Amino acid sequence: MRLLIRRTGITRPHSVQARRSTWIRLLSTEILHAELLPDRQSPHYVQESTSLSSLVWDKPLENVLIVKKPWDHNVRESLIQMASHIQRRYPRVNILVEEHVADEVQKQIGAAGVTAIHTGPGEVLRNKTDLLVTLGGDGTILHATSMFASGEVPPVLSFSLGTLGFLLPFDFKDFKTAFDMVYSSQASVVNRARLACQKMSIRKEITHLPSQSHIEHNSTHVYGNPDDYNLSPLTYAMNDINIHRGAEPHLTKLDIHVDGEFITRAIADGVTIATPTGSTAYSLSSGGSIVHPRVACILLTPICPRSLSFRPLIFPATSKICITASSESRGRGAELSVDGIAKGLVRPSDKILVESETGHNSGIWCVAKTDRDWVSGLNGLLGFNSSFGKGGEASGDVA
Amino acid sequence: MRLLIRRTGITRPHSVQARRSTWIRLLSTEILHAELLPDRQSPHYVQESTSLSSLVWDKPLENVLIVKKPWDHNVRESLIQMASHIQRRYPRVNILVEEHVADEVQKQIGAAGVTAIHTGPGEVLRNKTDLLVTLGGDGTILHATSMFASGEVPPVLSFSLGTLGFLLPFDFKDFKTAFDMVYSSQASVVNRARLACQKMSIRKEITHLPSQSHIEHNSTHVYGNPDDYNLSPLTYAMNDINIHRGAEPHLTKLDIHVDGEFITRAIADGVTIATPTGSTAYSLSSGGSIVHPRVACILLTPICPRSLSFRPLIFPATSKICITASSESRGRGAELSVDGIAKGLVRPSDKILVESETGHNSGIWCVAKTDRDWVSGLNGLLGFNSSFGKGGEASGDVA
Amino acid sequence: MRLLIRRTGITRPHSVQARRSTWIRLLSTEILHAELLPDRQSPHYVQESTSLSSLVWDKPLENVLIVKKPWDHNVRESLIQMASHIQRRYPRVNILVEEHVADEVQKQIGAAGVTAIHTGPGEVLRNKTDLLVTLGGDGTILHATSMFASGEVPPVLSFSLGTLGFLLPFDFKDFKTAFDMVYSSQASVVNRARLACQKMSIRKEITHLPSQSHIEHNSTHVYGNPDDYNLSPLTYAMNDINIHRGAEPHLTKLDIHVDGEFITRAIADGVTIATPTGSTAYSLSSGGSIVHPRVACILLTPICPRSLSFRPLIFPATSKICITASSESRGRGAELSVDGIAKGLVRPSDKILVESETGHNSGIWCVAKTDRDWVSGLNGLLGFNSSFGKGGEASGDVA
Amino acid sequence: MRLLIRRTGITRPHSVQARRSTWIRLLSTEILHAELLPDRQSPHYVQESTSLSSLVWDKPLENVLIVKKPWDHNVRESLIQMASHIQRRYPRVNILVEEHVADEVQKQIGAAGVTAIHTGPGEVLRNKTDLLVTLGGDGTILHATSMFASGEVPPVLSFSLGTLGFLLPFDFKDFKTAFDMVYSSQASVVNRARLACQKMSIRKEITHLPSQSHIEHNSTHVYGNPDDYNLSPLTYAMNDINIHRGAEPHLTKLDIHVDGEFITRAIADGVTIATPTGSTAYSLSSGGSIVHPRVACILLTPICPRSLSFRPLIFPATSKICITASSESRGRGAELSVDGIAKGLVRPSDKILVESETGHNSGIWCVAKTDRDWVSGLNGLLGFNSSFGKGGEASGDVA
Ligand SMILES: NC(=O)C1=CN([C@@H]2O[C@H](COP(=O)(O)OP(=O)(O)OC[C@H]3O[C@@H](n4cnc5c(N)ncnc54)[C@H](O)[C@@H]3O)[C@@H](O)[C@H]2O)C=CC1
Ligand SMILES: NC(=O)C1=CN([C@@H]2O[C@H](COP(=O)(O)OP(=O)(O)OC[C@H]3O[C@@H](n4cnc5c(N)ncnc54)[C@H](O)[C@@H]3O)[C@@H](O)[C@H]2O)C=CC1
Ligand SMILES: NC(=O)C1=CN([C@@H]2O[C@H](COP(=O)(O)OP(=O)(O)OC[C@H]3O[C@@H](n4cnc5c(N)ncnc54)[C@H](O)[C@@H]3O)[C@@H](O)[C@H]2O)C=CC1
Ligand SMILES: NC(=O)C1=CN([C@@H]2O[C@H](COP(=O)(O)OP(=O)(O)OC[C@H]3O[C@@H](n4cnc5c(N)ncnc54)[C@H](O)[C@@H]3O)[C@@H](O)[C@H]2O)C=CC1
Repeated sequence: MRLLIRRTGITRPHSVQARRSTWIRLLSTEILHAELLPDRQSPHYVQESTSLSSLVWDKPLENVLIVKKPWDHNVRESLIQMASHIQRRYPRVNILVEEHVADEVQKQIGAAGVTAIHTGPGEVLRNKTDLLVTLGGDGTILHATSMFASGEVPPVLSFSLGTLGFLLPFDFKDFKTAFDMVYSSQASVVNRARLACQKMSIRKEITHLPSQSHIEHNSTHVYGNPDDYNLSPLTYAMNDINIHRGAEPHLTKLDIHVDGEFITRAIADGVTIATPTGSTAYSLSSGGSIVHPRVACILLTPICPRSLSFRPLIFPATSKICITASSESRGRGAELSVDGIAKGLVRPSDKILVESETGHNSGIWCVAKTDRDWVSGLNGLLGFNSSFGKGGEASGDVA
Repeated sequence: MRLLIRRTGITRPHSVQARRSTWIRLLSTEILHAELLPDRQSPHYVQESTSLSSLVWDKPLENVLIVKKPWDHNVRESLIQMASHIQRRYPRVNILVEEHVADEVQKQIGAAGVTAIHTGPGEVLRNKTDLLVTLGGDGTILHATSMFASGEVPPVLSFSLGTLGFLLPFDFKDFKTAFDMVYSSQASVVNRARLACQKMSIRKEITHLPSQSHIEHNSTHVYGNPDDYNLSPLTYAMNDINIHRGAEPHLTKLDIHVDGEFITRAIADGVTIATPTGSTAYSLSSGGSIVHPRVACILLTPICPRSLSFRPLIFPATSKICITASSESRGRGAELSVDGIAKGLVRPSDKILVESETGHNSGIWCVAKTDRDWVSGLNGLLGFNSSFGKGGEASGDVA
Repeated sequence: MRLLIRRTGITRPHSVQARRSTWIRLLSTEILHAELLPDRQSPHYVQESTSLSSLVWDKPLENVLIVKKPWDHNVRESLIQMASHIQRRYPRVNILVEEHVADEVQKQIGAAGVTAIHTGPGEVLRNKTDLLVTLGGDGTILHATSMFASGEVPPVLSFSLGTLGFLLPFDFKDFKTAFDMVYSSQASVVNRARLACQKMSIRKEITHLPSQSHIEHNSTHVYGNPDDYNLSPLTYAMNDINIHRGAEPHLTKLDIHVDGEFITRAIADGVTIATPTGSTAYSLSSGGSIVHPRVACILLTPICPRSLSFRPLIFPATSKICITASSESRGRGAELSVDGIAKGLVRPSDKILVESETGHNSGIWCVAKTDRDWVSGLNGLLGFNSSFGKGGEASGDVA
Repeated sequence: MRLLIRRTGITRPHSVQARRSTWIRLLSTEILHAELLPDRQSPHYVQESTSLSSLVWDKPLENVLIVKKPWDHNVRESLIQMASHIQRRYPRVNILVEEHVADEVQKQIGAAGVTAIHTGPGEVLRNKTDLLVTLGGDGTILHATSMFASGEVPPVLSFSLGTLGFLLPFDFKDFKTAFDMVYSSQASVVNRARLACQKMSIRKEITHLPSQSHIEHNSTHVYGNPDDYNLSPLTYAMNDINIHRGAEPHLTKLDIHVDGEFITRAIADGVTIATPTGSTAYSLSSGGSIVHPRVACILLTPICPRSLSFRPLIFPATSKICITASSESRGRGAELSVDGIAKGLVRPSDKILVESETGHNSGIWCVAKTDRDWVSGLNGLLGFNSSFGKGGEASGDVA
């Protein structure tokens, strides 16, 4: 697919008016370059109650990016079904997909009567998407939002397919109603905070770095002498930022500062720094508490700490966290991953800076079914507090 | 019922031959005094495999004590159904029940064609019971075995009713087959170890008891100067011995010695000392590991310890544990309970001595369905490692 | 002391001017009735930074209530030392103590040159206290603030004595400087949120109470039909509200609703509902996370739950929690305790309503040493993440 | 060093008598090839009490392998000090070191008056060592015993240096007394069980492997069709066998069978299978209980399981455990490590078989100071149950 676009790049039409013309014709579906679409718009979010807001479009919704779980037959079918429905019912709405998805579905989608879909490289999709629809599991949302990991995320409408996930309020069978509510500005949304993360890689070997000194985590994200470090671009996490020993069979040593204050040295597999959304992901597996998404906080949960007394910590959302890989660590360093996506090594003396995303429309606005979604997720999906015995509350009742 | 027996005590027949004669006739079922029955016999247990033994009766099984969960309509029906089946099929087998059960069922049991059941006070039942059958939940087994908490327990055949319990291999609907296998010496049994427990109550206020001194836990169960203490009778636990702050809103302080060695002071809600069987009861709720019944060990699990680093400990089965309520504790002391049965206060400076039951036929021989019972219990009943998402392994599969 | 006041009640002077005159003379210290003092004033709290505020008196500080740990020789000496210092240096400041403390110290305080102290029953002290000073441990603060458990708490200045506590920023040896900073409106304070708690006791046996119905937790704290319940007065907690099986050797069953939504049934020893301050108390012993006091939230931590999957939950501070003792519970019910103070039984079908304290000057303003107090407490007092090996980070370094 | 030996290999003397002659002379210490030494002897172990045995040499102790922590100045000094003492006091005892250690110390050891040390490749050292001495931390013992990971381990005498470790009874300053007790057959030893581990690597892609079928873990360690697998050599673990996702940012899926019975599927970072010795290593960091070394058992502890209800399990020492990397796992597989030593990938469908080491002199015999070593280790080193507040039991005492 990518090749086709490149090959036919020269035929790219010069005006937006031309965008429905034939560009690449494969079977009966046109695969159009998304660059031709109007730029994305951000909706307004109007507070409805303590827990929910309304998602309001100022002008009609136009560009919908549908992201799907890869390599799954059923999910592919669902995408085609949805695209076909949208195109028939909302003719002015454009369907966008990732390039590899365009490749994957191009044969079948024509048969389903879809006349055109749009695609393009990530940066183009990012500039065009008004609404993000995900079909798959929790991992699919994470993948979809990570496409926007360097900027604002469009509102997210998520469907579960086959199996349920914790972040997925809607069952795919209800997709028509759900999409219509969003289209007609009648949907409710909840905001899920994100964390911003940046790596400061030590440029040259600095011999005497004071490992526990009182360093400042200031607004320009610089610790120590900025000349000694290379700064990675900012990346945003919906779930968590994980620093882990990885394949190294030995413990990592990570020095933790919060707001410039030394908190403790984690001698552990690693640490996970999570949003409330991420409290039910890796942090939970590591012994963290389950935190409601409306609690403004950052979780710092040690992963297999070599200390009997390192308990999960919860900081205010305004906290600035800095993790330094100790220069005493054995081996080549720790692995950084953000929302399950590997982000390379954290070498001894490198620093990972983490703080809450701030600014206009920060966080991720997720379309909600009811204000009960979180509780339902808890009980239905995590199997939270399921009691012993087959019959639920059962064995407690027999004595 | 108790009253009836007492009232008619004078009519007690003088010989064993007379035991089927009318003694008290209520409807058509005779309630006979169990004292008239032949004394109990102990079967032999022959090792079959690493995990199972065979239960072999040297002479035919005669006296079966059926213990039931109280105040449950269905359980009462099941008892009657079982009694009636046994009496019809195995006419030489006598049915014994507790006195309050005789009261409870006397009306209905006649209608079911049961012509005689036996009862009597606890000590009589203890002397007569060849086989212990329980109908109810885990709590019913605990109650049944606690009737034998001061001596050897007959083999136990347990049925689950309505809801399943962790210690209950058999579903009541299979009761005929299960009973027949036991009767005909074809049943397999597993041995569940018990703990022996004794309270040394301080007789007079001893002013300067060295709280952490190296005291000896010797075979006569005496610590310190025996004259200073009153010794309670030995009691045996199938699950656990619990020392807990009870209604006192403050922490207890308990000094723990193992084999005469001071281990630590628990500042906590309390501690539970458990058998492997009890590892899935209170100890599990308090964070303990799940221990297979064939591991020879004693679990010492702190309950809500006020220390970040007090982890559950597992000692060899040969260990002798002594818990002393600290003389510094606030309030009137801690509560002792054994297998969920309250055993009174542990006042400051009192000691609780715990060790494995030893001797011939020690432990509890429980009739087993297969050598897989433990694993089945784990998965089916505890909901062990049930994964997230409705469809079991489900949500892990969707990304 | 109590008796003396009562006995001499008739001699109570009629004007405030008279309050330094001899009223009861014992040795050389007068024990004066606190009712004669001017009414309490509330200071202003001015936000300084994200973490700290300034404590500003509008008119000079006059009435200081010193609360002490009972039955401790050293603490008594410290109280006398402090009272004597304050009286000498700030002659217009009045020292108040609880009645039993007045009794306890009256002999010695005269010898120390203190000419007058004031006392009276709780309600009088509550109306007079401008500043609350505590000498002892964490329990002493809890006791002191619980004296104000039905209303606004004066600012709290806490000193640790002998051993350190988690809530105690100041060492007693620095009491002069610390008091002077407070007196001269130069002290920093942090706010610690409180929880409001109310018991709805079922008035008459209600036979068919729907245990999991969608009931409203509305602003007047009424659930179900108000006529069926007696409402206890509101009480406030600095740490936690605990509902626990107490001396009952069996599990409790507690139905948990949040914002009128059924969350789960806890089959457990109980639950603790804690403030961030209380996150390092009972909740921590029960497996909860450590929450920074500036996170606006309520912790709901199960105590020894009989479920492998009941994890601690953290809700927004705006949540309204209702715990209903299940009508199926065995035994006489559960025990309620607030900040370690027993508050009686929660009988089957009774409800405990919990929400954050709201309104002007809500929470407890605690004088802080630095904005690092929380981190210091964590490391110094909880032994948080203390690594293995004697030398702190030690054993990690040797391979 | 290795090169020197090889270069001079031709000069290797032909008889044992010649072994003290000059072979390679560097400064004044001869570095001799260990192959010339008499073969190793195994001592007898005589049961003394429930917890301790005596270590008895049948003929005088001759070959002592001293293993040291690498790259540590102090440890190097200590090794030289010990070698010099032994050579002077026990002239018939030969000192063996690893090749890289011979390199490292050769310059200084001459100055200390040591005239000869022996070295050679691992397999030679394995054949010659009567006694294993370790200088360093826990990691040093693990490294030393892993040199014998394919066969019987000589008795181990361990010294802690600088910092203490959990497995290290002796302080280096007592090395003379400790060595003399061992030399003169007066030392006590404890036995630490080992686990045997073998990898079955799938030879060719097997398409339809039934992942949860009832497969047999039989004595020849073969599961499924042996032709489909390559069998790795057996390796022994003192602490643990770890299967972990490693650098893969996604969960592993591991199917667990015990004694041929499917137990559960771990969806987790991984699992650790540990000896009681290893119960205080990785298993503890993952939430496992602390198990006394005399409990005959195998621990199976999940590492960060993605299930609220996967608790650590403890099986009888006779259990045979098989872990299969699920063929559904994402990524390239999991990492295997044994006692902290990387052992390569476990690819989808590969199996790891684990069971207790059996046979004559199985396990590791460690020289013990007293029968209290374990308790001392617990309290002194793990900081077990250290209470809050600086003064140990402190803060509990203040209210
Ligand atoms: N927070 C907790 O988990 C508490 C647990 N207990 C346990 O309850 C036991 C007494 O049982 P009941 O009289 O029925 O009290 P109960 O009515 O409080 O019920 C205890 C629960 O534990 C289950 N149980 C009992 N023994 C078990 C075992 N060995 N493995 C798995 N589950 C088991 C029962 O099925 C029931 O669900 C005590 O021995 C103690 O272990 C007692 C108090 C509190
Ligand atoms: N198993 C446990 O951990 C239990 C804990 N408690 C806690 O005790 C509190 C009442 O305290 P006391 O009357 O002194 O009872 P107490 O004499 O039982 O002592 C409680 C202990 O907790 C410490 N503590 C109190 N509040 C704390 C906080 N916010 N952060 C850190 N440590 C704290 C105290 O210093 C003391 O060591 C309750 O609010 C409850 O949280 C009460 C019962 C059992
Ligand atoms: N997150 C964790 O806790 C991890 C633990 N490990 C453990 O490390 C062991 C390998 O040790 P090293 O090569 O030194 O690795 P390492 O340099 O990662 O250190 C492991 C730490 O564990 C301690 N340790 C080792 N065995 C112990 C035992 N039996 N009881 C108490 N403490 C013990 C050591 O003193 C050291 O502090 C493995 O067998 C594994 O158990 C390995 C990886 C992660
Ligand atoms: N041991 C563990 O629990 C590990 C967890 N993770 C988590 O996986 C996430 C990445 O997800 P995938 O790429 O799908 O990896 P994956 O294929 O390893 O699956 C992660 C699992 O976590 C679930 N999940 C993801 N986010 C969740 C949330 N916020 N609440 C509840 N469940 C959630 C997914 O449904 C899936 O079952 C990371 O952000 C991290 O939190 C990553 C590595 C190890």
